[in-house]
Amino acid sequence: MRITLLAGGVGGARFLRGLRAAAPQAQITVIGNTGDDINLFGLHVCPDLDTVMYTLGGGISEEQGWGRADESYTVQSELTAYGAGPDWFTLGDRDFATHIVRTSMLSAGLPLSAVTGKLCERWRPGVTLLPMTDDDVQTHVLIDDDAGTRTVHFQEWWVRLHAKVPARAFIAAGAERSTPAPGVLQAIADADFILLPPSNPVVSIGVILAVPGIAEAVAARTVVGVSPVIGGAPVRGMADACLAAIGVRSTAAAVAAHYGPGLLNGWLVDTADAAATGAAELAGIAVRARPLYMTDIDAAAEIAAAAISLAQELAHD
Amino acid sequence: MRITLLAGGVGGARFLRGLRAAAPQAQITVIGNTGDDINLFGLHVCPDLDTVMYTLGGGISEEQGWGRADESYTVQSELTAYGAGPDWFTLGDRDFATHIVRTSMLSAGLPLSAVTGKLCERWRPGVTLLPMTDDDVQTHVLIDDDAGTRTVHFQEWWVRLHAKVPARAFIAAGAERSTPAPGVLQAIADADFILLPPSNPVVSIGVILAVPGIAEAVAARTVVGVSPVIGGAPVRGMADACLAAIGVRSTAAAVAAHYGPGLLNGWLVDTADAAATGAAELAGIAVRARPLYMTDIDAAAEIAAAAISLAQELAHD
Repeated sequence: MRITLLAGGVGGARFLRGLRAAAPQAQITVIGNTGDDINLFGLHVCPDLDTVMYTLGGGISEEQGWGRADESYTVQSELTAYGAGPDWFTLGDRDFATHIVRTSMLSAGLPLSAVTGKLCERWRPGVTLLPMTDDDVQTHVLIDDDAGTRTVHFQEWWVRLHAKVPARAFIAAGAERSTPAPGVLQAIADADFILLPPSNPVVSIGVILAVPGIAEAVAARTVVGVSPVIGGAPVRGMADACLAAIGVRSTAAAVAAHYGPGLLNGWLVDTADAAATGAAELAGIAVRARPLYMTDIDAAAEIAAAAISLAQELAHD
Repeated sequence: MRITLLAGGVGGARFLRGLRAAAPQAQITVIGNTGDDINLFGLHVCPDLDTVMYTLGGGISEEQGWGRADESYTVQSELTAYGAGPDWFTLGDRDFATHIVRTSMLSAGLPLSAVTGKLCERWRPGVTLLPMTDDDVQTHVLIDDDAGTRTVHFQEWWVRLHAKVPARAFIAAGAERSTPAPGVLQAIADADFILLPPSNPVVSIGVILAVPGIAEAVAARTVVGVSPVIGGAPVRGMADACLAAIGVRSTAAAVAAHYGPGLLNGWLVDTADAAATGAAELAGIAVRARPLYMTDIDAAAEIAAAAISLAQELAHD
């Protein structure tokens, strides 16, 4: 069985851990969001790719959901002593090593996809992890604040401003000139089906779909998604602030409608949302309701198994 | 009083700490060796500049003589886990922050001299620290080993091979195309006198003198040196291996003769070497003997005071 996913950070990574348990024989390819990537202190940081890599490789901080376990912060406190660069983005010493190795390989001319493969030789995540593109695509956020109407990097809005300044729009800067990384379109074409884990529909999966060619390739396949919204609120993070910016309500049904039947064939919602969503068809999208809280790996595996079942059912229709 | 020094790492830094104590009102400019600089993990490491900066700024590891006090090694152990080379050059977490900041500023287009000035804003070393050049000059070592006759970076020979493979020659690669960093020639011209601390005559001071223009400027001034050799052996490090490669014996007299009366006007030797050197004139170089072991800052200050006295005496001749 071949399964390809479009994934952001924490939600995608935790779903993937369940998927790997539910389908240990499956060949899983993860197309990761790189719109959140940011250059900090001259180093290339890939928050979403690293969260997937660390989570599946056993190095994640379980408490945070991102960053390394057993982390220390000596480098960053020294950087602060130098008055260097942003202090609102926390990088631990172990994490710094990843960014140092990545930046060194990028500077030597390797594309991000090859670099990611090299980093995964250490972490052995059990999946093929691909960046959506090797090109520079950055998610920017259009905001109004005391400095006027301006765009800020997604991380500045998300981490420094805690997504509290209303976003007027998200811009995947550079996306129009980007191409999918090597292997991305093939992994979509070769997969038995595509899964959308409960990642942020706007700034994670939405940005991946903004890379020319990916949305069309995905739409041609059987696609099953897992709602990141339960009971009218995102399970984690501040996806509601992102949805609000693009005029989508924070409900499981609204997110499915946002993806639309042209992209999405099946949609898992939480039992709490079964009534509101309608347990039957939602505008051409097959809906199934079940508990969606990924409280542990077993719970994530059961959700993943349900997604596989629905995808197989739809693929054979 | 204006004093300008050409300095390498540990010996130069410890002498400088004494000099600062002996002449607290003096304007001291240090022209630091950058031939030892090495790119590790994509980061620009300046061992000699950092040793001076950390020593005078109170951040040095007193035990090692180089690197930061209270250091940890998380980043390097993670780099090793990635299989990222080399593992023979130890960099601590605090030290990494310096190289990250430096590399970031260099990548942004600042020359090394400006970057060094920025780093010193934190360390306040009490001297003006200048790299000998902003250009890429690397000390390479010509060796014969199982891989044939080849050149290796000085740090590989010094740190990885422990200077045990005989050096056939030292090459200041790129020196012929380099120019002194901004302020270097002015600091030499404006100084009341020039001091050569007990740094390595070959790979520290010798490499600085290889930058076109510096040797001529220094030779035009009153120059007093402090012997790095006591009793026929270098006080620290493996300078004897460097001296042997260029056919100079490891004696205080031989090092003075290597610099020569065209460059050197005065020479401090240890009392142990007084008889062998001749306490009087050595081929046109004024020699004074006194204890030269820098056992603590006070001892270093007394040596520095003796160097100042000799320089003032010679400058007034």
